[in-house]
Amino acid sequence: MDDRTYTADAEPGDTVTVAGWVHEIRDLGGIAFIIIRDTTGKIQVKFEKDEMDDDLVETGLNAHRESVVAVTGDVEDEERAPTGVEIVPDSLDVIAEADPELPLDPSGKVDAELPTRLDNRTLDLRKPEVKAIFEIRAAALEAVRDAFRDLGCTEINTPKIVATGTEGGTELFPITYFGQEAFMNQSPQLFKQLMVGSGLERVFEIGPIFRAEEHNTPRHLNEATSIDFESAFYDHREAMDACETIVKAAYEGVAENCQDQLEALDMTEEFEVPDGDFPRLTYEEALEKINATGELDEVLVWGDDLSTEAEHVLGDEVGEHYFITDWPSEIKPFYIKDHDDDAEVSTGFDMMHPSMELVSGGQREHRYDKLVDGFEQQGLDPEAFEYYTKMFKYGMPPHAGWGLGGERLIMTMLGLGNIREAVLFPRDRQRLSP
Amino acid sequence: MDDRTYTADAEPGDTVTVAGWVHEIRDLGGIAFIIIRDTTGKIQVKFEKDEMDDDLVETGLNAHRESVVAVTGDVEDEERAPTGVEIVPDSLDVIAEADPELPLDPSGKVDAELPTRLDNRTLDLRKPEVKAIFEIRAAALEAVRDAFRDLGCTEINTPKIVATGTEGGTELFPITYFGQEAFMNQSPQLFKQLMVGSGLERVFEIGPIFRAEEHNTPRHLNEATSIDFESAFYDHREAMDACETIVKAAYEGVAENCQDQLEALDMTEEFEVPDGDFPRLTYEEALEKINATGELDEVLVWGDDLSTEAEHVLGDEVGEHYFITDWPSEIKPFYIKDHDDDAEVSTGFDMMHPSMELVSGGQREHRYDKLVDGFEQQGLDPEAFEYYTKMFKYGMPPHAGWGLGGERLIMTMLGLGNIREAVLFPRDRQRLSP
Repeated sequence: MDDRTYTADAEPGDTVTVAGWVHEIRDLGGIAFIIIRDTTGKIQVKFEKDEMDDDLVETGLNAHRESVVAVTGDVEDEERAPTGVEIVPDSLDVIAEADPELPLDPSGKVDAELPTRLDNRTLDLRKPEVKAIFEIRAAALEAVRDAFRDLGCTEINTPKIVATGTEGGTELFPITYFGQEAFMNQSPQLFKQLMVGSGLERVFEIGPIFRAEEHNTPRHLNEATSIDFESAFYDHREAMDACETIVKAAYEGVAENCQDQLEALDMTEEFEVPDGDFPRLTYEEALEKINATGELDEVLVWGDDLSTEAEHVLGDEVGEHYFITDWPSEIKPFYIKDHDDDAEVSTGFDMMHPSMELVSGGQREHRYDKLVDGFEQQGLDPEAFEYYTKMFKYGMPPHAGWGLGGERLIMTMLGLGNIREAVLFPRDRQRLSP
Repeated sequence: MDDRTYTADAEPGDTVTVAGWVHEIRDLGGIAFIIIRDTTGKIQVKFEKDEMDDDLVETGLNAHRESVVAVTGDVEDEERAPTGVEIVPDSLDVIAEADPELPLDPSGKVDAELPTRLDNRTLDLRKPEVKAIFEIRAAALEAVRDAFRDLGCTEINTPKIVATGTEGGTELFPITYFGQEAFMNQSPQLFKQLMVGSGLERVFEIGPIFRAEEHNTPRHLNEATSIDFESAFYDHREAMDACETIVKAAYEGVAENCQDQLEALDMTEEFEVPDGDFPRLTYEEALEKINATGELDEVLVWGDDLSTEAEHVLGDEVGEHYFITDWPSEIKPFYIKDHDDDAEVSTGFDMMHPSMELVSGGQREHRYDKLVDGFEQQGLDPEAFEYYTKMFKYGMPPHAGWGLGGERLIMTMLGLGNIREAVLFPRDRQRLSP
């Protein structure tokens, strides 16, 4: 059945059948044109009314926009046509007639608000500049997977239904699991750590995470894609090296394979693969830089977390991807290892795009006693996490890793104004469907 | 920090630091050996007690099995050593001491039941034959992704939190989502269909699905990995072609990249990439074949579903991967298209391994009116699915696709006795942790 020719492959002299959507109908009187659109592009179909079968002309010109049609005919050179060729039709079948009232205009002539676009994603994704985002997303994740394998990682899949969350209960979606209390996992953190103590040693996972945060911002989702890395015998510096490698690989994969998509987004000129090492600022240096600008109302002091505003001020100063290292232990999770020579300072790091945080990581606490103490200090019951902690008694190597927000990576790469543009069907407090 | 040499790369004449787990200690009196294991293999470390520093010998020989250690020394030829080389140590550091009481023996000398293995996955995965399963799984999924891209597919990610299930409510895990009723998705079916009507046209997804079935069998999971495919302008036959391509690609990827892992599983000889076309039996032919064996207590008639026993009888007859096509419409889901010339017979198909069903697919109903009728006939409220059905009003092309059980693919490929062996952390009615 799919023996059609893609519009992009129709060459003058060929007799072809193309199938796709009616993008536009232009009736100029004696002559009329239909533009057919498929996944590869568009092609013009010419109707010379006096020279063609009346039924054929009528069927073609009466098809509603966005109907699915198949057209068979000869391809001819026509320099006035948008792609330099056109089809002179022998037959036209309407395969799926579209309702004349469209909730969204895929030709892009009428702007639509994001909620309307998300309610009608099928139509929205007929626009080349929207389709391009998801082709770039796929290409970026493909490049990321390849780069992880080059680093010697095994791809893993860890469970999304869990008995306990990583960071405690407040941000978890509860599930009814055969009469038991369970949750949707907010991070593969504990599971990937269990894997570095196994024979796999170095692993990655790309999968969904679920956070019941009541945020309502352009950069938060309640279901997101997390790109997770963890390696035995790595310290936080090596984990940062790996992070830089992976983020650059994503950009390189897009630069190599998605020039058409970047053009559809009008980004060919501005898209740049990050070059050079990402600067590594300590938290203390970051505070100094922010305070020196005088742009915040308050002076930041040791122990303060960085507000969105502070991140923006710092991002403007640095102007490229960068790391913030050596955070105060008190504001990093208990499973992040402190520096051996100063327990006030952790090995935790964040990797930042100038506009927002992309990555959180660090060397992990691999010593059983310290880990159990950490649970208690966090107010968590170590017994509930015994499935995890007990493995630390049987030879858990030092290890480090991080989690990268997949949608934030795409959002910052493409300069999207809202993270929901980087997800086919976003989930937020208001949106559960489609 | 990870400037260690992998055991597999230690060459005679080198001075190296290897780090890994204490696999075995053999004390022969004047001489003793420690076998160190890392992700690449094992290496022998020799202690000549009279010629070495007492502290070094004592530290080494007192290390408990499965402790993490780092050993620095010279690599020498030693034909009696398991790998033909050994390390003469200058120093040995115990990095993470293991408890002497191990809940599971990674050396494999003591057998463990599956529940014990799953409770202690970190230790279980130190066994080469267990690690091999997950390296093969990763390689198979990598090959599957590559093959999908060769077919012109875009990889997508669809939401796992949904307002409605595909097949109705009985097999869904309910979630509390900001005070609303929601569910964990049992299939990306509806979402991938929405994508074939978009500019993407041909898509795949590899992701988790969740089924609240109360099955307790060696081949069911409550959280599984689904490999999903859907293409615009495909009919069920083309979807079967794609299915065959993808399954063969998985086997080929493993054959090409996992010979060491197949050896660890003692499968080098028996592992075969399926060759030739998978036979395509109609449902009616399948019934005849089963009935002809006389092995079932009952004679199967049109409309009967195939029991596990019937599948086994048929699988034994066919002896290779095969399709069952042209199922009775009444036992296939409403979204599967019936044959135009006979509404009693659907375009639905299953792809079978001789031991079990792997794939379910078909051409889809793309006509709005028929689709809405189907919901009603299934006893589902079409309004609850309006987010999906309404897109069928705006130019939905004919399309077909399928879903392949990722764990069943690995289970049948490797002849595993229980599907739980193909998942790092399986979820079933009893098991929610780790």
